[in-house]
Amino acid sequence: MKKNIFYHAGCSVCKSAENEILQLIDKDSVEIVNLGDQPEKILPAKEAGLKSVPALVTSSGTILHINYGASIEDLIS
Amino acid sequence: MKKNIFYHAGCSVCKSAENEILQLIDKDSVEIVNLGDQPEKILPAKEAGLKSVPALVTSSGTILHINYGASIEDLIS
Repeated sequence: MKKNIFYHAGCSVCKSAENEILQLIDKDSVEIVNLGDQPEKILPAKEAGLKSVPALVTSSGTILHINYGASIEDLIS
Repeated sequence: MKKNIFYHAGCSVCKSAENEILQLIDKDSVEIVNLGDQPEKILPAKEAGLKSVPALVTSSGTILHINYGASIEDLIS
C-alpha cells in the first residue's frame, strides 16, 4: 500500500502541524520527509504538485496543504 | 473526549478535503460542520481562530487550515 507522506521543512509551523497530524493519523501509515534534510526530494515533490509546506500527500495522491510554513519555491533557492 | 471538528462551506475544495480527511481519520472522532448550512456557527468559529475553510480544529484546539476554499470573512458577508 502506498503511504501518506507528510512533507515539512523543519520550521515551527511545520513541527506544530506534524504533531497534530501524528495524533490524528496512525503513525505507521505516514512517512515524514524533512525537505531541509533531504533537498533531493524537493523537485520531485514540486512536480507532484506540492506548493508549500507543511503538506500531507495522501496515499491516493491528493495534496492537503496545511496552514502555511514556507513556499516550495523558497526551499529551492 | 472533545472531538475534532472539520469545518467546511460546501465548496468543491472543501468536499475534496473532507473526503481525504475522512479516509485518514476515524469517522467517529470527527464532527463535520457545514457553515453554509449552520451560519450561526460562523462567528464562534472565527473567534476560535478559524481563518478559512476547509479547516480541521483538533480536539486540542489547534487549527489546521487545509488548502484554501474560502475566507471566513467571505462567509460572513
